[in-house]
Amino acid sequence: MISPIRWNGEAVAVELLDQTQLPVKEVWLTLTSPNEMAEAIEMLRVRGAPAIGIAAAYGVVLALRAATSAPHETAIRAIDFLGHTRPTAVNLSWSLARMRAVVTACGAPDQSRLREALLSEARAIEAEDRAAGRKLGEYGLSLLRDGMTVLTHCHTGGVATSGYGTALAPFILGAQVGVQLSAYVDETRPLLQGSRITAWELAKAGVEATLITDSMAGHVMRDKRVDAIIVGADRIAANGDVANKIGTYALAVLARVHTIPFYVSAPLSTLDLAMPSGGDIVIEERAADEITHGFGRQTAPVGISVYNPAFDITPAEYVSAIITECGVVRPPYAQTLQELA
Amino acid sequence: MISPIRWNGEAVAVELLDQTQLPVKEVWLTLTSPNEMAEAIEMLRVRGAPAIGIAAAYGVVLALRAATSAPHETAIRAIDFLGHTRPTAVNLSWSLARMRAVVTACGAPDQSRLREALLSEARAIEAEDRAAGRKLGEYGLSLLRDGMTVLTHCHTGGVATSGYGTALAPFILGAQVGVQLSAYVDETRPLLQGSRITAWELAKAGVEATLITDSMAGHVMRDKRVDAIIVGADRIAANGDVANKIGTYALAVLARVHTIPFYVSAPLSTLDLAMPSGGDIVIEERAADEITHGFGRQTAPVGISVYNPAFDITPAEYVSAIITECGVVRPPYAQTLQELA
Repeated sequence: MISPIRWNGEAVAVELLDQTQLPVKEVWLTLTSPNEMAEAIEMLRVRGAPAIGIAAAYGVVLALRAATSAPHETAIRAIDFLGHTRPTAVNLSWSLARMRAVVTACGAPDQSRLREALLSEARAIEAEDRAAGRKLGEYGLSLLRDGMTVLTHCHTGGVATSGYGTALAPFILGAQVGVQLSAYVDETRPLLQGSRITAWELAKAGVEATLITDSMAGHVMRDKRVDAIIVGADRIAANGDVANKIGTYALAVLARVHTIPFYVSAPLSTLDLAMPSGGDIVIEERAADEITHGFGRQTAPVGISVYNPAFDITPAEYVSAIITECGVVRPPYAQTLQELA
Repeated sequence: MISPIRWNGEAVAVELLDQTQLPVKEVWLTLTSPNEMAEAIEMLRVRGAPAIGIAAAYGVVLALRAATSAPHETAIRAIDFLGHTRPTAVNLSWSLARMRAVVTACGAPDQSRLREALLSEARAIEAEDRAAGRKLGEYGLSLLRDGMTVLTHCHTGGVATSGYGTALAPFILGAQVGVQLSAYVDETRPLLQGSRITAWELAKAGVEATLITDSMAGHVMRDKRVDAIIVGADRIAANGDVANKIGTYALAVLARVHTIPFYVSAPLSTLDLAMPSGGDIVIEERAADEITHGFGRQTAPVGISVYNPAFDITPAEYVSAIITECGVVRPPYAQTLQELA
């Protein structure tokens, strides 16, 4: 298991895996200030909502590395500063709010005691995320068996979180506890999160992974090479409709036709009970050049029209089960998700 | 209309559009030997079953460009050599069989007369293909209506043939005769023939085309943006099963689920009645680096396992109709294809 964010107590520093260098190089940065952490977040060296929240929390601790005459003010300044790195990331403001509460609650004027209190909170944020990831892995494994081959899409792994990931949790936990799953990994165009990050992370975890293009998934299913499909989710509506990386819907339809179970693995924070169905979810459209200049090279004629939706909606009827850190949920989702939340 | 293979009588050479340079540059190569032609076929500078057949035929003529003491043997050697460049392409062996028959039938020991006979046969293969392409366009348009939006996969256009293409024939002929179709174009990983060539060629022909990644086709169908799907074929078995570019099968399944007609447009030379079903077709597997190093950049970890089938099989049950130069064929294909051939 790779924890992409590691507190180094001796150096009073954060060791951070630079995701922008993957899969070519595994580069670990040593960060010693909130400024360096802010740069890492802004430049997407650390990405994935849970990982950003954890990184920012440790970034606050770094503010008290050097001696300061006003430790409380220094910490609050760092919290404000880090909060502006990725303004739309919900986990970031949630995590920084917890750090702010520690500063407010901690009356001690002593810098080292405040730093210890902040470090303890950052460690707690990380540990809670890891525990939730482990639960996703356990519940995921309860649906799978040793030796199975499972197809996955996009990146939903450890380096987006504190270690286990969401859809990758059963693979990573399985490798730890001796339940060996094999993986087919969709490369996931246009941004290739599957080939760049998922394939790298599964190989690191000792999981046998085979990379394919997105267009091969149907053939691979027809060829009876896949026992199950497991994906993450960006948002789950109250009726169980799932918004996830573009291409997920086609996988779900193909899984149904081939009688292959289709699982969604996601923390409860992904559940949006205020959203009645997937039809209410607005699909983000992204820039054309992700498709026309995807690989550092122009691969389409200049001026061609492009449609680039980032997500699609998979209707609940195609989802065999939703795996959460609180258990496995089965249809009818309108009822079972409500009971869980 | 673009003819990608042009015999240059004065230079005794073939002018070939280098499809690997599209869409950035329109580069024409001058080939003067079977070796150069074999390289062009293997490196996909010329691709598409009919174009490969035409190119290989002209490649045989090039064998007799320089003086040789044994013209018949030289020609046969070139035929054997060119026959090994793309084993799955049925047009290649069909076209080379015609060239072989010319060598066998041609008793004249005279090199220049044998060359003329071979050139004449290569020209005939090309002319027949162009006439057939126009017919494919006419029959394809008989299934479509002005203003329809049609999704296509890979490249099956003029530069894959002598001019009209197969699946693109209705778009190209339609633009000529005033039946305006719009297109969704799958980029077609790993080699991006859709974005590099189809999008370029449709734009050249004045067809409104929108580029998407392969993973978006299902979402686009669910969103009711597509009236029909039309693809080409690399080989059609006697029962109507279709071998075509990887990703075709998934499109056919998705079309069925969305009640969208799924058409295959292919010349009769693609039909292989000796092949009872698609299960008998050997699927070519290609090199891993097409996926891991897509376009000049490493996008996957070193040493990752890759599965890279070039084709998949679409069972006949998913094919609404097969468009040929001799008419539109409907199920039951085992009977209707037999009647046509």
